[in-house]
Amino acid sequence: MIKGIAASAGVSVSKVFKLQHPVLNIEKRDADSETEVKKLQDAVVKTQNDITAIKEQAVGRLAEEDLAIFDAHLMVTQDPEFVGQIEEMIKNDNVNADFAADQVGNMFIGMFESMDDPYFRERAADIKDVAYRLKCHILGLNIPDLTRINEEVVIVAEDLTPSDTAQLDRRFVKGFATEIGGRTSHSAIMARSLEIPAIVGAGSILDQCEHGDEIVLDALEGVIIFKPTEEQKTEYAAKAEAFAEHRRSLLELKDAETITKDGHKVELAGNIGTPKDVEGVNNNGGEAVGLYRTEFLYMDASELPNEEDQFEAYKSVLENMAPGRVVVRTLDIGGDKELSYLKFPHEMNPFLGYRAIRLCLDRKDIFRVQIRALLRASVYGKLSIMFPMIATIQEFRDAKAVVEEEKKNLSKEGVAFSDDIELGMMVEIPAAAILADQFAKEADFFSIGTNDLIQYSMAADRMNEKVSYLYQPYNPSILRLVKMTIAGAHKEGKWCGMCGEMAGDERAIPLLLGLGLDEFSMSASSILEARRIIRDLSFAEMQALTEQALNCSTTEEVLTLLDNAIK
Amino acid sequence: MIKGIAASAGVSVSKVFKLQHPVLNIEKRDADSETEVKKLQDAVVKTQNDITAIKEQAVGRLAEEDLAIFDAHLMVTQDPEFVGQIEEMIKNDNVNADFAADQVGNMFIGMFESMDDPYFRERAADIKDVAYRLKCHILGLNIPDLTRINEEVVIVAEDLTPSDTAQLDRRFVKGFATEIGGRTSHSAIMARSLEIPAIVGAGSILDQCEHGDEIVLDALEGVIIFKPTEEQKTEYAAKAEAFAEHRRSLLELKDAETITKDGHKVELAGNIGTPKDVEGVNNNGGEAVGLYRTEFLYMDASELPNEEDQFEAYKSVLENMAPGRVVVRTLDIGGDKELSYLKFPHEMNPFLGYRAIRLCLDRKDIFRVQIRALLRASVYGKLSIMFPMIATIQEFRDAKAVVEEEKKNLSKEGVAFSDDIELGMMVEIPAAAILADQFAKEADFFSIGTNDLIQYSMAADRMNEKVSYLYQPYNPSILRLVKMTIAGAHKEGKWCGMCGEMAGDERAIPLLLGLGLDEFSMSASSILEARRIIRDLSFAEMQALTEQALNCSTTEEVLTLLDNAIK
Repeated sequence: MIKGIAASAGVSVSKVFKLQHPVLNIEKRDADSETEVKKLQDAVVKTQNDITAIKEQAVGRLAEEDLAIFDAHLMVTQDPEFVGQIEEMIKNDNVNADFAADQVGNMFIGMFESMDDPYFRERAADIKDVAYRLKCHILGLNIPDLTRINEEVVIVAEDLTPSDTAQLDRRFVKGFATEIGGRTSHSAIMARSLEIPAIVGAGSILDQCEHGDEIVLDALEGVIIFKPTEEQKTEYAAKAEAFAEHRRSLLELKDAETITKDGHKVELAGNIGTPKDVEGVNNNGGEAVGLYRTEFLYMDASELPNEEDQFEAYKSVLENMAPGRVVVRTLDIGGDKELSYLKFPHEMNPFLGYRAIRLCLDRKDIFRVQIRALLRASVYGKLSIMFPMIATIQEFRDAKAVVEEEKKNLSKEGVAFSDDIELGMMVEIPAAAILADQFAKEADFFSIGTNDLIQYSMAADRMNEKVSYLYQPYNPSILRLVKMTIAGAHKEGKWCGMCGEMAGDERAIPLLLGLGLDEFSMSASSILEARRIIRDLSFAEMQALTEQALNCSTTEEVLTLLDNAIK
Repeated sequence: MIKGIAASAGVSVSKVFKLQHPVLNIEKRDADSETEVKKLQDAVVKTQNDITAIKEQAVGRLAEEDLAIFDAHLMVTQDPEFVGQIEEMIKNDNVNADFAADQVGNMFIGMFESMDDPYFRERAADIKDVAYRLKCHILGLNIPDLTRINEEVVIVAEDLTPSDTAQLDRRFVKGFATEIGGRTSHSAIMARSLEIPAIVGAGSILDQCEHGDEIVLDALEGVIIFKPTEEQKTEYAAKAEAFAEHRRSLLELKDAETITKDGHKVELAGNIGTPKDVEGVNNNGGEAVGLYRTEFLYMDASELPNEEDQFEAYKSVLENMAPGRVVVRTLDIGGDKELSYLKFPHEMNPFLGYRAIRLCLDRKDIFRVQIRALLRASVYGKLSIMFPMIATIQEFRDAKAVVEEEKKNLSKEGVAFSDDIELGMMVEIPAAAILADQFAKEADFFSIGTNDLIQYSMAADRMNEKVSYLYQPYNPSILRLVKMTIAGAHKEGKWCGMCGEMAGDERAIPLLLGLGLDEFSMSASSILEARRIIRDLSFAEMQALTEQALNCSTTEEVLTLLDNAIK
């Protein structure tokens, strides 16, 4: 029995497909440069064909933003800096093509990996993937072909590359387990997006199994069992069936009301990154879009998206969600999210830096384009505009002023926009939560962003392993901030939602309900489970529970209280 | 009339001493390497003599921590990497010594400047200073000698180097004005430490004056006037006298009570960095040390200071302040404060990272040494131990447990310690302020660290120019956090102080008084002014004023309220 990190829920009892990529032994040799350049060129073509084929297979299976990675890979193979330098090395040093590809590849990877910027670190992963494929083709080695899988298997690998995950066919691949990675690594995210059960970071599992071995993958508990006993097989098959049954039963709640036993109604909404994601929200019974992260429009582009492209995207989301509300967050860029085509200042503490509304108020030229596109799209549904990273009331007023100015401009131009657009804000900075009663006089709604709120309130970067123990959503101080925010909104008759990870956390939902949260926005796949939980709860009981939680002194006390109250 | 940044209070009417360092025109020449190496070696000796002489003059005038800079400079001249590379370049390339010194110097400066770490960026300034002096000596050029000044002057310069400020003789130098720099630049800090009026960042002033011109320097308002009229001279001479008179009158309050008109008493304490600083606190009528920053003990050393050295330092402070309280903050390192001899992880957001108590609880080996030294010193005065960067109650308990363990160990060893040691904490993380009522059940006192509290509450790095507008001490959200902290302490009968910059800010004092702050800890030179202000105020009136401020929505509203109430 091996423990790993449960990265994507589900249970499978199946057979091992051992995905071990060829180990390359590359050594420097004297070689005829003409022959080697030819080898390189052939390998480049084969690599490009591979990538194109993989991408084609992935269309429809992966979200558009995830498909973009293959374009990035193709770009690497077409980059004259990259292929050109390999060719040059072959010619100048009379070395073998695989050695030159290895050297140049490693140089580029090292260069990108050493950068602070996560964007460039991701590019390092792209180059690694492409360089590996290229070297295999130069050496005439076969890369295991996941597309040939035609029976039910669980893949066991050191890690899955983006190309690997894109090739997974849900009909046959019943799960995967990797040696490395964490809950937020690329393969984990992909697994959740594809709804394939997955365990990551399980340690040296490749040595412990053979191709074709029987395997139990319990990605609810993070447990892997190779060569299970008959008893174990029966036990986990039942668990798998129970999980599938649970999923089916949840679907019955698709059109049910989100209401507690004692008649308190709340709204369940979905978080989306692209217009295509609205489908998932609708399929999972989401009543609204509680967070549309528009930064993907900017991050997936090679230049600032123009008004027309933005208008089309917003229109599509609003139409497909209508009559449900769509909360569109204005550009939230900076910090760990950068744009290749926009120069950001180098910052010592980017999480405490020039980002989101701070950038937009400084670069109103960029901000206005988005606001105009939003206003124009507003006639196609129910639009709420939300400003991220608001710290002071002056910032909110300044952002609101831009909206008012663009409304005037559109009126002059005779362009229609809705007269019923809500203007709200993220509450993700402690100062905003503390002053929520004052903010609520000016904002139409709040949406609490727990990830940042927790990180700033505890003064701990949650990406930093050394202090990640301080990322405590259940710390009483965080609950008090959430309470202040909700109370502030209600005092002025405004609504308060939450779009951070906490809103979709099964353990947190009773507490948030008790705190009076009006709207819960989460990944689409969590909506039905949240509805089931809420329909089983009593609002009055949760209010009483919450009062106790607010008077706890530590996270552990809150969790004990919760676990005793909720079975 | 030229405006600059008032960096150190005071007014002078005097004559200009134009401090313009030689402009070096360094060009590459073919040269005899033997001659040039000889030139270099002579110049190194002269440079070392200079630095030693400057340091000797500065002893007694500068605090020990400021003197350390000259040792750093001497170390540069003795660094074989530095001088050795210059010599090598002379020999290998047959070039002139000044060119080689310039090239090697710039390489080192560039290397250090490009580092994120402020420690290394300071080293770049050291190397710049030394390299300049070295090149001047190679070229036989005179560096203006501030030690020869023998009449009253105001120095006008582009900037003052550390060597420059160390040479200032307060008898003759009545102020200085620089073209560049800000309130926290090195020369500004030195000016305050030496109590010399100073204006920094005044723009191109060197072009606007001649050596010997008359000058008015109003470092209260940040105004410089070259060639003042007779009228202006009279006006500012009166202002200078009024300021001097004000300082004298403040000294009369040295032994006065810190009590409001209506009989509310508070405590005024000093912030110190080294044992020597206690003298300044006593001379300025400080009633206690409210913050002893022990990190200087660690930062000025080349290895972890041992228990004995720490014991001596703590004992000295406690004895010299007795019977007044000494609040010793345990090691607050990490973030922007690193130790050359301790490896710190590279962090994306160091201000949200592994620092202060987080590091001490992880490295209890380091922490225990400090706790033992403190406990042993506790018999020499009134000791309060304060833990920095506490975010959760668990952390406070863990830190307290180490103190209890070391008390047991000392008891076993038969070593005495006081049975009346307070254990408190900094409140500088929003989560701690919000949960202050719970923390107050376990901590004996709080001291609010406003710099960090503001920075985390607003999610804005105050060192980052792009977002420094969000560093708003008067934002109602900050006032509310201060209020919560004080109220939390009082509810449990504990005291609450403040040791951040805000505590010494004349504009903030009425507000903090009204919020119920018990102890104000500030730089020694601000204590008497604070006492004067408090003695002129009514506590009841300030409480009423504070209630209004807590219900403001913006910083501007609070400031307007304050300025209308306090004349």
